[in-house]
Amino acid sequence: MANFKGHALPGSFFLLFGLWWSVKYPMRQCWKNNLHGRRQKLPLFFTRIDLIEGAIKIFFSFVGIMAEQFVPDGPHAHLYNDGWVKLMNWQHSTMYLFFGISGIADVLCASSLPVPKGLDRMALSLALFVEGFLFYFHVHNRPPLDTHIHSLLLFAVFGGVASTMLEVFILDHPILELTRSSLAILQGTWFYQIGFVLFPLRGPEWNEKDHGNLMFITMCYCWHLAVALLIVGINYSIVFCAMRRRGAGQRDQIEIGLRKSALSDTSTQKALLQDSDEE
Amino acid sequence: MANFKGHALPGSFFLLFGLWWSVKYPMRQCWKNNLHGRRQKLPLFFTRIDLIEGAIKIFFSFVGIMAEQFVPDGPHAHLYNDGWVKLMNWQHSTMYLFFGISGIADVLCASSLPVPKGLDRMALSLALFVEGFLFYFHVHNRPPLDTHIHSLLLFAVFGGVASTMLEVFILDHPILELTRSSLAILQGTWFYQIGFVLFPLRGPEWNEKDHGNLMFITMCYCWHLAVALLIVGINYSIVFCAMRRRGAGQRDQIEIGLRKSALSDTSTQKALLQDSDEE
Amino acid sequence: MANFKGHALPGSFFLLFGLWWSVKYPMRQCWKNNLHGRRQKLPLFFTRIDLIEGAIKIFFSFVGIMAEQFVPDGPHAHLYNDGWVKLMNWQHSTMYLFFGISGIADVLCASSLPVPKGLDRMALSLALFVEGFLFYFHVHNRPPLDTHIHSLLLFAVFGGVASTMLEVFILDHPILELTRSSLAILQGTWFYQIGFVLFPLRGPEWNEKDHGNLMFITMCYCWHLAVALLIVGINYSIVFCAMRRRGAGQRDQIEIGLRKSALSDTSTQKALLQDSDEE
Amino acid sequence: MANFKGHALPGSFFLLFGLWWSVKYPMRQCWKNNLHGRRQKLPLFFTRIDLIEGAIKIFFSFVGIMAEQFVPDGPHAHLYNDGWVKLMNWQHSTMYLFFGISGIADVLCASSLPVPKGLDRMALSLALFVEGFLFYFHVHNRPPLDTHIHSLLLFAVFGGVASTMLEVFILDHPILELTRSSLAILQGTWFYQIGFVLFPLRGPEWNEKDHGNLMFITMCYCWHLAVALLIVGINYSIVFCAMRRRGAGQRDQIEIGLRKSALSDTSTQKALLQDSDEE
Repeated sequence: MANFKGHALPGSFFLLFGLWWSVKYPMRQCWKNNLHGRRQKLPLFFTRIDLIEGAIKIFFSFVGIMAEQFVPDGPHAHLYNDGWVKLMNWQHSTMYLFFGISGIADVLCASSLPVPKGLDRMALSLALFVEGFLFYFHVHNRPPLDTHIHSLLLFAVFGGVASTMLEVFILDHPILELTRSSLAILQGTWFYQIGFVLFPLRGPEWNEKDHGNLMFITMCYCWHLAVALLIVGINYSIVFCAMRRRGAGQRDQIEIGLRKSALSDTSTQKALLQDSDEE
Repeated sequence: MANFKGHALPGSFFLLFGLWWSVKYPMRQCWKNNLHGRRQKLPLFFTRIDLIEGAIKIFFSFVGIMAEQFVPDGPHAHLYNDGWVKLMNWQHSTMYLFFGISGIADVLCASSLPVPKGLDRMALSLALFVEGFLFYFHVHNRPPLDTHIHSLLLFAVFGGVASTMLEVFILDHPILELTRSSLAILQGTWFYQIGFVLFPLRGPEWNEKDHGNLMFITMCYCWHLAVALLIVGINYSIVFCAMRRRGAGQRDQIEIGLRKSALSDTSTQKALLQDSDEE
Repeated sequence: MANFKGHALPGSFFLLFGLWWSVKYPMRQCWKNNLHGRRQKLPLFFTRIDLIEGAIKIFFSFVGIMAEQFVPDGPHAHLYNDGWVKLMNWQHSTMYLFFGISGIADVLCASSLPVPKGLDRMALSLALFVEGFLFYFHVHNRPPLDTHIHSLLLFAVFGGVASTMLEVFILDHPILELTRSSLAILQGTWFYQIGFVLFPLRGPEWNEKDHGNLMFITMCYCWHLAVALLIVGINYSIVFCAMRRRGAGQRDQIEIGLRKSALSDTSTQKALLQDSDEE
Repeated sequence: MANFKGHALPGSFFLLFGLWWSVKYPMRQCWKNNLHGRRQKLPLFFTRIDLIEGAIKIFFSFVGIMAEQFVPDGPHAHLYNDGWVKLMNWQHSTMYLFFGISGIADVLCASSLPVPKGLDRMALSLALFVEGFLFYFHVHNRPPLDTHIHSLLLFAVFGGVASTMLEVFILDHPILELTRSSLAILQGTWFYQIGFVLFPLRGPEWNEKDHGNLMFITMCYCWHLAVALLIVGINYSIVFCAMRRRGAGQRDQIEIGLRKSALSDTSTQKALLQDSDEE
């Protein structure tokens, strides 16, 4: 599917998941901070959400595999027929397969089965690794701009592999969760950018060998990253503001989550903060 | 031993060890979860198993070294004779040597001697590193397909080095143990795949320069990985089901190991789970 | 700004921040050691300093972006005009942008908002990464000496990325803080060195292809590192001496921070030190 | 000093330090295990040893720098004289300089000054990094065998950098200490090997382009590693046996350090071991 749609589709999925994570994780962190007062409601609600997230991942992966196999010019589940049949589509199916496995791991972890902690992150990290691994051997023998623009994608992919892998060992670290959200959004918008550059909707084609184009694309990647950070930052603050307003009645508990409160001077708060400062 | 058997042999060893680990570690984890009630039986039984595992490793390594040296076309312990004698066989002997050292470390760790914790993982990590190190300098100047198919093996090898190295510092982490099992199975099946591709039992030889073949092999590697994950997952669930059935009489203790129990609502369980959730 | 000033400017900023950090962190560590007696003053004073540091970063980044855009031969905010306009200046602006984001993160972390811990280090690490990332794709197709001297800079940059990233997970580790200070000073002095080599103020130009020059520059880099370590070491000891003199009145508390006191033999101190030795 | 002696000298130093560490660290670990009964003697004795070790390092580094500068064909402290003067000697001096800095850090850490913990390991890691860094840019444009044999050295050097760096964060980890000892011995013996290969004392010169020679050297490196492990293992067991015999009178305390005691069944020991098993 080497056309604009073929890049917009995975881009949309990553973008949606990134945006969703940039809302889910701040919500969860905010709940945790408020947790000391009301322990009962967290697990069930968030577990259900994780179940649904996993189910959606499995569904989309299944749809993705089917689409790659049975589009009119797809391989229709034929692999070898006097030469390999449509290996590109098979590769994309393989990528979807691993995201499907990641979805299954999500569902298992959200169920009540005795699954080792962190299996969902490990599976996600593996799915991203396979994506990056196949992309890496995918982009040889193409024009410089095409190779470069796909290589840049690998930074987001392998960054995601590393940060998600770390989450296996450092569970629920807020910074890692925000990093994962940002990198997913970055991947999403960058897929769109690849589509726009390689298959311009209108206007002239890009010169694939011009050094200026390469330089601009490199810089443009950083701008996408900045935009991803901005989006995550905005979502984070919206969620925190909304949760704080809702929880205004239980104000006495809400303060515990604050990182610092240098401007307030009551001595009771000081005592509470001591622990977190000494960490 | 550049023939099918020469790849099937190490493949079988890795496959056997991978399968065995994918049974042993879930068993051990399951025992640990049940441990709070019955502490007495774990150490002796599992220590014996580790001893036997180490002894088998030493035995196989010894056999491997002997075989490489004294097969009819082997070097018969001659290293230099107007030029290096059969360096390939010497390299394979060296690899076996380090797996033998790893076996010795296993035996030491399972014995009652004052050995530093994690020595067995360190030695295994080193053995894998030496395997990868020698393979890396091994595959130069060969046809592209041959080089590529051996390079892919290095991903499993160095993945194993990294995950086993981590186990030195994060002892008994369930995810790392499953990763190690999967990568060992992957190595095992991949050795068979190399054998089938480079020395096809029947049918025509593979074209070693066709780009389609390279692309297929890359993708095929991911399928092997998926199969390895599937096998480990099946073994894990069989072991847990079997252990749970056996331990049904001590049901009160078994629940502690569960990761989540969102669907059950008794408040006593809540208290037990608090600790593990806050980790 | 490919001239001497263009290298001296960022060099000065890094040098200033490195020097400042090499004073701030020892001060903070010293205060912490003394903290057991007087908890009240630390947070407010150091939080204010962090606020000011963040504000200065934002200000300088803003000035940097403006300067790059509106110098006489700059792009004046035009990006595309029948070809890319002054991409170098745009790249530098992008670098400043991320240091600005790092400044915003500093301010947020120093404020009383519920920001996840370590966000400031993450943002700084990211800013350094973007700097290194753009530099990496920046230095192709130049004479060997030019490429080499810029590549050496990348060691300091990516070393800084790694050590600052570690600080996200290991908060307030003294060694990491000193490493960061040293690497900032190293970057600062090395920017000056690049300026002196590529745009000599007087005397003949350097031969950009002489192998001896490359070898000397590599070694010279190590000397800069040694000087950076020396500066950090001197600042560290000056700060500790000054703080110790000031705190001489509260002597009973000051000893706690000492790493070892092998030469003193009182048994009360032994008991205090037990904890830190067993760590 | 591109001759046999020029490689035997640093080789001897690394070998000596490696052997010494392989005795010191087991001794220290053994003392720690026995520590619960007799706390008083450890710090002073081992601190003195560390002081002496640091002083010896400083002394040797100073001698090394002087030797490199003032040997008859050395630069005699002249750096530039119508072209760079003897850059090789200057590079070696720089390496010695950083080992000298490492020695100073050892002395500071062993003194009673308030130095941050782990500074000695950080400085050692840095010294090894500088050694590897200069070597890396050192070996270009040489015959294949020469390049390869020096590159192999880099595995030991950067392995040492990584393991020593880890020691900064995981203080006194027995496996890391043994790894450092092994890698130092490996470096030492490999320097000798380089000397024997490039400057054979008698017999014909090695063919520097023969692929068989490259393959043998790669394998030979693994044998050096195996020998280094053997030496460290032997020293470890000798030290533990000797210490155990000495401490036989205080037998009740000695058992605590044992990793496992599956064969003994007394219930008091069980309780003691609980802690270490649950780690």
